[in-house]
Amino acid sequence: MVHLPPVEIKEKDLCVKMLAAPINPSDINRIQGVYPIRPPAPAIGGYEGVGEVVSVGSSVENFTTGDWVIPSPPSFGTWQTYIVKQEDSWHRVAKTVPPEYAATITVNPLTAYCLLKDFTKLNPGDSIVQNGATSMVGQCVIQLARLWDVRSVNIIRDRPGSEEAKDKLRKLGADEVYTESQLDVKNVKNLLSDVPEPSLGLNCVGGNASSLVLKILRKGGTMVTYGGMSKKPVTASTSSFIFKDLVLRGFWLQKWLASSDNMRDCKVMIDHLLSLVRDNHFKYEMELVSFDDFNIALDKALGKLGSQPKQILRF
Amino acid sequence: MVHLPPVEIKEKDLCVKMLAAPINPSDINRIQGVYPIRPPAPAIGGYEGVGEVVSVGSSVENFTTGDWVIPSPPSFGTWQTYIVKQEDSWHRVAKTVPPEYAATITVNPLTAYCLLKDFTKLNPGDSIVQNGATSMVGQCVIQLARLWDVRSVNIIRDRPGSEEAKDKLRKLGADEVYTESQLDVKNVKNLLSDVPEPSLGLNCVGGNASSLVLKILRKGGTMVTYGGMSKKPVTASTSSFIFKDLVLRGFWLQKWLASSDNMRDCKVMIDHLLSLVRDNHFKYEMELVSFDDFNIALDKALGKLGSQPKQILRF
Repeated sequence: MVHLPPVEIKEKDLCVKMLAAPINPSDINRIQGVYPIRPPAPAIGGYEGVGEVVSVGSSVENFTTGDWVIPSPPSFGTWQTYIVKQEDSWHRVAKTVPPEYAATITVNPLTAYCLLKDFTKLNPGDSIVQNGATSMVGQCVIQLARLWDVRSVNIIRDRPGSEEAKDKLRKLGADEVYTESQLDVKNVKNLLSDVPEPSLGLNCVGGNASSLVLKILRKGGTMVTYGGMSKKPVTASTSSFIFKDLVLRGFWLQKWLASSDNMRDCKVMIDHLLSLVRDNHFKYEMELVSFDDFNIALDKALGKLGSQPKQILRF
Repeated sequence: MVHLPPVEIKEKDLCVKMLAAPINPSDINRIQGVYPIRPPAPAIGGYEGVGEVVSVGSSVENFTTGDWVIPSPPSFGTWQTYIVKQEDSWHRVAKTVPPEYAATITVNPLTAYCLLKDFTKLNPGDSIVQNGATSMVGQCVIQLARLWDVRSVNIIRDRPGSEEAKDKLRKLGADEVYTESQLDVKNVKNLLSDVPEPSLGLNCVGGNASSLVLKILRKGGTMVTYGGMSKKPVTASTSSFIFKDLVLRGFWLQKWLASSDNMRDCKVMIDHLLSLVRDNHFKYEMELVSFDDFNIALDKALGKLGSQPKQILRF
């Protein structure tokens, strides 16, 4: 933990006392230097979070002390107790949800929202297939799909406790949940005969788990890669392109947010997602940890202490 | 060779005496059963060719004896001396080009044309990258690109005689030609600094040759797979989707032709391609073989006698 000198609050600045900020895998990747865009070092970690406005510059008109705000677009440095930045860097959110939801609504839930709406037109009764279904994006995809009456086929790793993981996902609204090994069969269509063939596939794993998504997709379907948790590449047969006419694409929230149209849309989408949380239509597992216990939270986020819920720092 | 009984010429039929028909790799794949659409057996091979109208049905209005015609859309059974089919199965072509060009203009040149026009908007000065550049589609891509002032980066196999192959492609208009091993270097951008980064990649090989296309493509570029000569799949890293934003798609002429809009366009495109041949802007290597020597031509087409030009049967 580092103490920084106080900064002056300029006329358009907000001074925000942070309330909560998560440790996302992408925060760790950024620190590891995996991402092509890097802040100048030394830098402060954290990319999203929620805070309370404690003081405003002399010409600030749209915010007042006590408001809850999130950095929008998300930006570097949410793992600190106070942040001073111009008012146009912030988006006010309703105080009707627990702060840990406002703190985490951008990176994972917004990604899930974009994945479901930007690549194919999904109509009620359609279906999608995803791997890495227990991830936070995966959990959000399941719940948004159910809200839109879209069926979800979910693939999870083979592991001890996979039956418990399947039950959890079914409770969130998953229609079908399989481990990878269950889908390594010749006639996967028989297994999935109750669900329409998915037109959209979501891949955050790569390797065999992405081959399964391609196998389950219908003719002309699209697979969107937004992560690579297995660290293995995506492999696709020639015939999957020529005869099955599949399309393979990628999604990166940071690039998506770089468009001003998307930046405007994203505030509406975030408000919508928070209203779903408020109405109990949308939830995900989190563990709140005091900022003083940052080291423990980081070990948990790095997977050093087994499978753990999303770690949320409280300031 | 099989003798079939004569058929009656109905009022809307043309009786066409075949002049020339090629042996394409896709003809062999169809016989092997690789393709998902199969004619009922026993079937006659051959998918394109040119013939002369020798007799017309009583209500045929748009054709007369002596016309040269090609099956349009291409269809099964061009490896025979006479074909009787309804007039709407045929497209009249100008007699201003050698028959072997009219016989081969659909499958490979039309594929090249579609690959260059259907996936990205190419402007003069842009560039494309392709593997399998010595293939017939590859040769057509090089010449069409040059006609449209688009630069081409071409990848060929490492093999004895690769320098000669490079020279041939350069004479057709190739801007850059490399063997795969020449491109297996860390900083491929330095090697290609004279050419703008390609927005379109064409893959008919798979395996390492498709990885090289992905490596050379610019951010946001599209790779279209239309063949898999190495019988190896396409492999792409997670970051090529997320950070490089590449799109991977496929093209299959037979599916493209199934749309009525495309069928109408294709006749205009074929006439345009034949006019390019007539004006000496478009050529490719072919070897004419008598139908009686079908066995030799087939062995050559199957690669049993080393690298050979396209085999064209003359009837």
